[in-house]
Formats: sequence, structure tokens, C-alpha cells
Amino acid sequence: MNNIKEYISQNKERILNELFGLIRIPTVSGSADHVDDMQKAAIYLKENLLNSGADKVEIYQTEGAPIVYGEKKINESLQTVMIYGHYDVMPAGNKPGSTEGWDSPPFEPEIRNEKIYARGADDDKGQVFIQLKAFEYLAKTNQLNCNVKFILEGEEETGSDSIAVFCNQYKEMLKADIILVSDTGIIAQDTPSITVGLRGIAYMQVEVQGPNHDLHSGIYGGAVANPANVLTKMIAALFDENNHIAIPGFYDDVLVISHEERVEMAKAPYDEQKYCEALGIKSTYGEKGYSTLERTGIRPSLDINGIWSGFTQEGTKTVLPEKASAKISMRLVPNQQPDKIAKLFEDFLLSIAPKGVTVKVKYLHGGEPYVAPSEMIAYRAASKAYEKTFNKIPVPTRSGGSIPIISLFEKVLGTKSILMGFGLESDAIHAPNENFSLFNLFIGIETIAWFYQYYAEEMNK
Amino acid sequence: MNNIKEYISQNKERILNELFGLIRIPTVSGSADHVDDMQKAAIYLKENLLNSGADKVEIYQTEGAPIVYGEKKINESLQTVMIYGHYDVMPAGNKPGSTEGWDSPPFEPEIRNEKIYARGADDDKGQVFIQLKAFEYLAKTNQLNCNVKFILEGEEETGSDSIAVFCNQYKEMLKADIILVSDTGIIAQDTPSITVGLRGIAYMQVEVQGPNHDLHSGIYGGAVANPANVLTKMIAALFDENNHIAIPGFYDDVLVISHEERVEMAKAPYDEQKYCEALGIKSTYGEKGYSTLERTGIRPSLDINGIWSGFTQEGTKTVLPEKASAKISMRLVPNQQPDKIAKLFEDFLLSIAPKGVTVKVKYLHGGEPYVAPSEMIAYRAASKAYEKTFNKIPVPTRSGGSIPIISLFEKVLGTKSILMGFGLESDAIHAPNENFSLFNLFIGIETIAWFYQYYAEEMNK
Repeated sequence: MNNIKEYISQNKERILNELFGLIRIPTVSGSADHVDDMQKAAIYLKENLLNSGADKVEIYQTEGAPIVYGEKKINESLQTVMIYGHYDVMPAGNKPGSTEGWDSPPFEPEIRNEKIYARGADDDKGQVFIQLKAFEYLAKTNQLNCNVKFILEGEEETGSDSIAVFCNQYKEMLKADIILVSDTGIIAQDTPSITVGLRGIAYMQVEVQGPNHDLHSGIYGGAVANPANVLTKMIAALFDENNHIAIPGFYDDVLVISHEERVEMAKAPYDEQKYCEALGIKSTYGEKGYSTLERTGIRPSLDINGIWSGFTQEGTKTVLPEKASAKISMRLVPNQQPDKIAKLFEDFLLSIAPKGVTVKVKYLHGGEPYVAPSEMIAYRAASKAYEKTFNKIPVPTRSGGSIPIISLFEKVLGTKSILMGFGLESDAIHAPNENFSLFNLFIGIETIAWFYQYYAEEMNK
Repeated sequence: MNNIKEYISQNKERILNELFGLIRIPTVSGSADHVDDMQKAAIYLKENLLNSGADKVEIYQTEGAPIVYGEKKINESLQTVMIYGHYDVMPAGNKPGSTEGWDSPPFEPEIRNEKIYARGADDDKGQVFIQLKAFEYLAKTNQLNCNVKFILEGEEETGSDSIAVFCNQYKEMLKADIILVSDTGIIAQDTPSITVGLRGIAYMQVEVQGPNHDLHSGIYGGAVANPANVLTKMIAALFDENNHIAIPGFYDDVLVISHEERVEMAKAPYDEQKYCEALGIKSTYGEKGYSTLERTGIRPSLDINGIWSGFTQEGTKTVLPEKASAKISMRLVPNQQPDKIAKLFEDFLLSIAPKGVTVKVKYLHGGEPYVAPSEMIAYRAASKAYEKTFNKIPVPTRSGGSIPIISLFEKVLGTKSILMGFGLESDAIHAPNENFSLFNLFIGIETIAWFYQYYAEEMNK
């Protein structure tokens, strides 16, 4: 293990070229325009896995994007680590083909200030490469002390539907002692952390249909329900005056976190002023009675991800639109169930819809929340690995994000996941100018390699 | 006057061809892409006016679209009728270049079922042609018994800014006894009506800026004010539970209509079931305590004309958008002042904006409400003209729409307007498949010709 730094240093250029090759394939999740790109990316990853030292790699076709499964077996009696990652990415912008806000083309990686700028640079192509190259190092230098499996999917950003089916189908093949995932972040470059909690998600679409065509807002305004007015009113009714979510039953299953744990959470490094400055806002905003870290870590949330209706060009058009739509997602915490929450959301909106309109609610995708206790063997190994490379014991944190498949792995395969991410808050994932620092990429490879070492030690104690 | 039917019948094809030529120029209001089309349309109208019998026609350039002014002087001692109309049109769709919902190209007129289908077929190119061809008939047959002026503008759909300046500049030139306007409708083909009231308008744009870039809705959701959530909440606060507008001071200047007048209004033919059926809605919806005709005729209203934020494509994107925007217009009734209302609207929204966002309110355009009493000489003449051609006394009605320039004419020129429109509710103005019935076009020409006759008689009584 002592030559890992040297190995990375000697292979830097090749590793970057390999990663850039993957980034250049615009694997935009769930888009009909990118079906071929998903196939290309799967083939690219298959070849990379084989070159990195996998014995066997298969591409499994699904109803959506293909799944790449690879493995290297050392010895049946040894423990097995399964790496999960995803090669699909968010769209570059909010409108088809838009690259608004990007300083360089989203699918042409560019290095500026020691950072890679591109869609997927961090989430999750960059982090998948951390796993691939740590594995490569161990395999090539004959230091691999466990069996390794890889499962790489292309539907993470749109709900991981196909991999859920796949897990049920190939339970035996996917057996492992631990699932290792690099799809989260650390608090800062000088403050490593391990994500011990992820929120779940229920992603909804609401459509309000009013009249059968756009109307003149003068001739009809005031007498015909305006679907956009109605939609804003219904969405406003989802919150009370304290920014609690007002859907009846919404909080019924929320795990109440003890006072002690909240005190512990409050010790995590957090600077409200810096947080606001980085986002260009004057103040945070949220549920009364909770801190920022609690609002994203242990409390559910509800956000409009998109809303649209009527005339949206420059100038004025006096139209009473026939239809208004919104995409709304809720982040869930233990023990909320996305299907139940989706139903409560739908029932509530339908119950408050006025009779002049027709309201349709669609449940686009869901994922359960996840908790990885710090008592786990894998947590101890991960903690030692971060300490080795960062010279600092990592802080356990709860992320506000969701990786729906993680809780499904636990349910279907009975296997826990350890979340060893290397992203930073400033990486702008899901946003324009997504980036990933070269420092984090390479220290990530190093840290993951050490994880294997410590995991084997801990398992054989 | 007895050969008017014959004249129309002999010139039908030519009249339609001339109108179609104007429709084919896509004079979309306020669009930078159509600046040249405005010039083309002005030249087209100048030529048509000269061919129709005007002595003198001038095109006046403005900061916006050109104004076409034409006149025919018969005798200084005779009364003068000034015709106002507009050659600009609404965009075909809600998105640039979109023709969604149209069954034929919006700027290529097509006759189906005895109706002209095209943007501007009714509003207002078709109705401008009613005026042009009634004038042509009288001029060509030497039956014109008054002086005639024409003032045709290209900014009606975006607030008539330039013509307001023009009126102040050319007060002398624009002197007239009455302004005659065809830019409204009748109740039904068998129920002629004259519009005696128009609502005013204040058209606003609201922008809510949150963080300086789109955020991941998981990592930040719950802790950072979501501009789309905030915007929906602020818009919802514009109404109370009875659908009264909740902006403080909003109703202060609203003219209260007497019980007697409301009883009179209730006699106008109106069938709630047919109204709903035509719009494909189950029920009307609006301010508590008022009927549908009252809600659009004597009460102000507030409608979202457009709203947009975040991710609006197919699929899912877990984004907390940096910005949310809405176009909102209010229809005003006597004696509400648009500038005052715009200020109240802005003040209220700014007062309720939470501190996590920055709210900007822009006042895009305004127009005052207008009332044309049925005691006017011109009203009597108009009533006789409709009775002559429709065999039925027209009903006085209040339209929910706005023609901002009409109240300005009264203020600046001191001249009242008479609104002799021929549109139908089914004409889908401002919407896809706008249309204008050939019957209404030709009976309109006939009715306007009779108006001149009766107006002269009434004036010389």
C-alpha cells in the first residue's frame, strides 16, 4: 500500500483521459435523445473495468438504461465488497439543449484552477472513477485482499427503476458483505466526513386543467378558475405559517431525534454566514424550531422543482391559461414511506381542488430514507481510511440528498452500504458549472484503497 | 344606402383577399423579431386607405410601431367621425414560434365552415377591415355625409404607449366628434350588443431571486428559501377565502354599482350551462357574492398570465431553482387608477416577501377603465344601425376586456368612443384557432355604413 501515491502520480494523465472519455458521453438520465449514449457508456465502463483488472464483466439490458456488472474473485472464503455507482447525469440545463450558466460546454471537460468542470465531473462519473482506479491499483499490484463486485447503473437521477428489478432477479450474484458507494460529499477539504443518513424522496407532478383552451384574461378573468391561480393556491396550502408541511398525516412516521443526538449534530462544523455567502442569500429559511443542518438532515422538506403555465416570453399576453403544471419533490426521513407520502400528497391536493378545474397528480418516482450506523465494521474501516489520508478523524453527517437504491439494497439484498463520498458543497452538482477538484479525485482513490486494507483487518479481527 | 348588400356581395372576394394580405404579415406585438412586419403592415394599410377613398394618409414613426393616420374631408361644417383600430396581434402561442393548438398555420388564413381561421382574423385585423370597407362603400358611392379620420396603431396588445404620446402631440389633427371602434364583440349572432363599459388593466411582472445558482433540492431543500415556493405563497396571499383580492386598498376606488343596475344587468341573456359547456368546465369560479356577468363586467380581477421556474421538461430533476417569475394582470373597473393599483400590488408583495429571497416587481403596462353611457347620441345611432341589420335592438353590455387607449382618448382629446364590435365569444381571440365568421365580417360592414347614416341624422336633429 505504500506505493499508492506514486501509482496515482505516475498514472494521473491516463486516469484523467479515461474519466474524460466517460464524461464526453452525454448520458442524460431518462431522456429519449440519449438512449444510444447509455449503451456507449455501458460499453466504455465494461472495457475500463476489464482493463482495470475485473475477471468478468457483463452488460445487462433493462427496460431503461443498461446495468454494468463486473467482478474479480480472489477467494470464496474472503469477504466481498460490492461497489455501486451510476453513470447517468442530470441534464445540463432546465430547458432542452440549454447550457445557460455554464462557462464551458457541459460535456467537454475542462480543467480550470485544478478543478474538472463538466456535467458528471463529481456526480457520479468522477466518483465512479475513484472506485475504478482504487480497484485497479489493488488488482494491478496484487494487493486485493477481498472479492470485488461492481454494479453501475444509468437511472439513478430518475429513480433507479431498472436496478430495483435487477436486484430482485440476481440476488445470489449480488451477495456481498458491504456495498461501497462514492456518491456523497465531505464537509470540506480539511474536514472529512462520512454520510450516515440519507433522506428518501417522493417526486410528484401536478397538472391543473381549467378551460379547454387559453382564454382572453379580460373577457373571462374573474369568472373562470385560472389554473395557474389555483395551482399557486394549492401549493401554498401545502405549508402552514411555520413552514411545517400541512399535508394531513405527513409527519406521522417521522422518527423523532433525541435531544442528545441533536446536541451532537450541533457540534458539526457549520458557519451560517459562509453558508449564506456561498449561495448569495441574506438568510436561510425553513421549518420553525430547527437549525439548517437539522432542516436538511433529520427533517423532511417539500420543494417545487419546476412550475410552468401560460405566456412566458418577453412582453405581455393577456391570457388566462388553460393549464398549469408543477413538479414537486418531497425529501423524506426515517421512517417515512415514499408510497404512503405520495398518496397523502395526492389525496390532500385533490381534496382542496376547487370545482372549476380538474387536478391530476402523478407519482414520478420514490426512494426510502437510509441510515448507516457508525457502529458498523465498515464505518470503522472507512473512518480509519479517511484519517490516514486526511490526517483527521471524519465527522458522521446526515445528507439531505437521496440515493433511493441504497435502502432498496438493504431491503432486497440484506446488505448495508457505506457512503464514502469525496464531493464538496462547491461542486455545484445538478447545477451549471458542476466541478470536481483534482485533489479530491486523487485523495479519493487513495482513501478507498486504504478502506480495503482496514476493512480486511477489521473483518479478520 | 340601399345598394350596400349588393356592393358587399360584388366585392366579397376582393375584400377577403385584401384582409388576407394584412393577416399574412405577422405583426406580433412588442416582438423584436417583427419590427419590419410592423412597417410592412403600415404601408399595406396606407395603400388600402388611399384605394378606399382617403384623401391623405401618413405613416408616423414612433419609438415603437408606426401609426397610420388617414383622412377624408367632406366639409368643415360637418361632424367628424374618427375610426380607431389596431393592426398588431397577440403571439400565436405561449412559446416563441409555437403553433400548439392551431389546426392551420396562424398567419396563413384559411376558410373553414364559413369562418376565417388566423391570428388577427377578429382581433383586430378583421374588425379594422369592417371599418375600411364600410368607409370605402360610402366614399366610392358618394354617400359619405361626414368627415372621416382613421388612426391605426400597432401596439394595442402591449399597452398603446406610442399612440398615447402621439395623441398629446397631434391634438388638433385628431379632433373629432366621436371615435368609432370595432374591437369588441356581440353577445351572439342573434343577439347584437353594444359595449358600454371596458375594464382597465395593470400588467405586472414579478421575479423572485433566491440563491445565486440552481441548487440540489436534497442537499439544500428545507433550509434555503425556494423562489418557486415563495412565489406561489405570495400569489396565494393576493386572494382571501372568498376570492376577494386581498391587496390592502385594492377596492377603495371601485365604483359601487346600484342594486337597480345589477337587476338590469341580470336581464342580459346568459346561460350558465352553455357558458360552461363551451369552455369545457364544470363550474364557474370567482368572487363570492357576484354573478358571472358581474364578475367580468363590474368587478376587478387578478390573473396569472404566465408563471415559470426551474425544470419544466419531461422526467425529473431534483433542482431547487434559483429564480421564479410570473406575469400577473389585474382588470380594473371605474374608478380604479392603474398606476395606483400597480403601486399597491408592488408594495404588498414586497411587504410579504420573506428575507431569504429578493423580490422585484415591474409594471409592464396599464390602461384605465372606460364607460360609454347609453345616453350618448352615438349610442342611439349605433343602436339603430344594429337594429337595422340584425332586426333586433342591441343590448348594452360591459366587457371584461380592456382597450387602454379609449380612456386616454377621452382624457387627452376630450372625445368619447362608441364601441361597435362584431366578434363572438367563440372567436378564440388571444388563443389558438382564432377565427372570425364571414357573416359577422359582412354584416359588420353593413352595420357600420348604417351607423354613419343614423349618426348624421341624430347630429342634425
